[in-house]
Amino acid sequence: MRYEDAGVNLNAAEETTRRIKEALAGARHPGVIAGVGAFAGAFDAGRLAALERPVLLASTDGVGTKTLVAARVGRWRGLGADLVNHGVDDLLAAGGWPLFFLDYLAAARLEPDVVGEVVAGLAEAARAAGLAVLGGETAEMPGVYREGALDLAGTIVGYAERERLPDPARLRPGDVLLALASSGLHTNGYSLARRALAELDWEAPRSELGGRNVAEALLEPHTSYLPVWRRLEAAGLLPKTAAHITGGGVYGNLPRVLPKGLGARLIRGRWPEPPIFSLIQRIGGVEDREMFRVFNMGLGMLLVYDPAAAEAALEVLDGGWRVGEVVPGEGVFVEGVDG
Amino acid sequence: MRYEDAGVNLNAAEETTRRIKEALAGARHPGVIAGVGAFAGAFDAGRLAALERPVLLASTDGVGTKTLVAARVGRWRGLGADLVNHGVDDLLAAGGWPLFFLDYLAAARLEPDVVGEVVAGLAEAARAAGLAVLGGETAEMPGVYREGALDLAGTIVGYAERERLPDPARLRPGDVLLALASSGLHTNGYSLARRALAELDWEAPRSELGGRNVAEALLEPHTSYLPVWRRLEAAGLLPKTAAHITGGGVYGNLPRVLPKGLGARLIRGRWPEPPIFSLIQRIGGVEDREMFRVFNMGLGMLLVYDPAAAEAALEVLDGGWRVGEVVPGEGVFVEGVDG
Repeated sequence: MRYEDAGVNLNAAEETTRRIKEALAGARHPGVIAGVGAFAGAFDAGRLAALERPVLLASTDGVGTKTLVAARVGRWRGLGADLVNHGVDDLLAAGGWPLFFLDYLAAARLEPDVVGEVVAGLAEAARAAGLAVLGGETAEMPGVYREGALDLAGTIVGYAERERLPDPARLRPGDVLLALASSGLHTNGYSLARRALAELDWEAPRSELGGRNVAEALLEPHTSYLPVWRRLEAAGLLPKTAAHITGGGVYGNLPRVLPKGLGARLIRGRWPEPPIFSLIQRIGGVEDREMFRVFNMGLGMLLVYDPAAAEAALEVLDGGWRVGEVVPGEGVFVEGVDG
Repeated sequence: MRYEDAGVNLNAAEETTRRIKEALAGARHPGVIAGVGAFAGAFDAGRLAALERPVLLASTDGVGTKTLVAARVGRWRGLGADLVNHGVDDLLAAGGWPLFFLDYLAAARLEPDVVGEVVAGLAEAARAAGLAVLGGETAEMPGVYREGALDLAGTIVGYAERERLPDPARLRPGDVLLALASSGLHTNGYSLARRALAELDWEAPRSELGGRNVAEALLEPHTSYLPVWRRLEAAGLLPKTAAHITGGGVYGNLPRVLPKGLGARLIRGRWPEPPIFSLIQRIGGVEDREMFRVFNMGLGMLLVYDPAAAEAALEVLDGGWRVGEVVPGEGVFVEGVDG
């Protein structure tokens, strides 16, 4: 018996490794001392030495069943950006700045073309963010994964000055909630979306999507808020705290940054909702509150400011909306949904 | 339509989160500023400020189809230690010391009991290593995973002083290879092992396994070499470089740390081979060279020393073998296997 008899294709693994190296060749980062192929990647952390009280931040996330949308239409490149940008936004919300990224990609069989596309997208997004791809792992596990399906997860590591970490104790009733637009579902709610839209033709242009088709609207990559964050930092206008609106929607994510005794009130209609959401809602027969419980509904990131700073921040944002405020009490209330 | 209609069980997700928090409660680490539940975990990196040229090291890995062995016998706890210790050893081989860990666990359905066991094992191993569990992600994806199967991956982050990173240029012909024992398969070769042993009774004690059964021998957790590494550092006897013997065996991993123009020669018989390997070989009808290409064959970690330091290191190791040496040329030759 040989390894290949156990369902492991070593030639495909070699070809996959070659494609990964090719895809990452254009994404070399000056901070990388040892990268893909080393037992552990090594990254020059010199800039941490300049901080008074350096803090490392890290987050692991996956892209969920957005991979099944990519599989249905055979378009993989955007998933790499989804993975990187989701991580970047988590880090920003937590008060950090990104340093490097590692990915994990596993499937029943590794298709070199698919892996190459995913990693190429990942490398593009990393380069755009000035982020190093420090390493990663691919695994072929026919007994674990369904044929044709793959899973994609990643870990981002960044840093912050301790005094700059968001502090819930600084929030006050009357603080303003500004929203940054999401590009669509980002990386959450795909199980419901796929179920709701399963019977539609995903490749036909639809007027209600402004002429785009369902596949394009569903695969629209997760927005990176790093450019906006850099502008806010340059203006000295980083928010008191921020909530990245991912799985669980605004109800699940905003409370993660609110202190005990404070809630939030949002007013529906204050921000645009990408049309893919109304399509899912109509075709799937989903109630309003369920939509807000599952999807970001256009709210990619919520930023909390005191009222004076909010005005100035809105000017810097150049595309953001005042969507609500911090209120005494508990929980999140969306006017137009909850009453 | 509701989220639950799309196959997502939010009650199970809540129960899973509760179990994870419970499992991690005993593993609180003084370095953690923000942990599980934050958009990104935050870790006090004060000790990096004491370094002259701080380097961050990171590695992502999975436990492969060892999860299917755990599933066959319903014993999950060891997988957490596998994941942590694999990461720790990768970091040590790369010249780093561990700081924190993040895990990723995904399945068709999250069974709270299973997740609780895995995370409890992970927390135990992290505590033993003085490592913080800074975060993680669980995902339920019925369309991606096979029923009953799960995947488990993780990312470890550590640090080093730049001048202490292994440098292949320091290796010389005649340098000695010392081996640290593996406890068994560690986390590699399970597709072949499961195939070879599929028809055996995994719960019956076997004399050739010293009275243990197949499940126990296969699930033996990945050894952490951190205690050994600490003794070596205390004695000023860290190796010139080290190779963590994972997927690809000694042929695949030793060349990762050898410079161009140098190879290695090992002599079979100089170290003990755990009996699970001869069982797999006999029952599966696997050739010698294939065994060494797939499994670690008892070589958990190979350490490279100049001959004088090797003597001293062997005394500190208190359980290590002189298994071969660095030679001019290319590639890895195992006497007794390759000729």
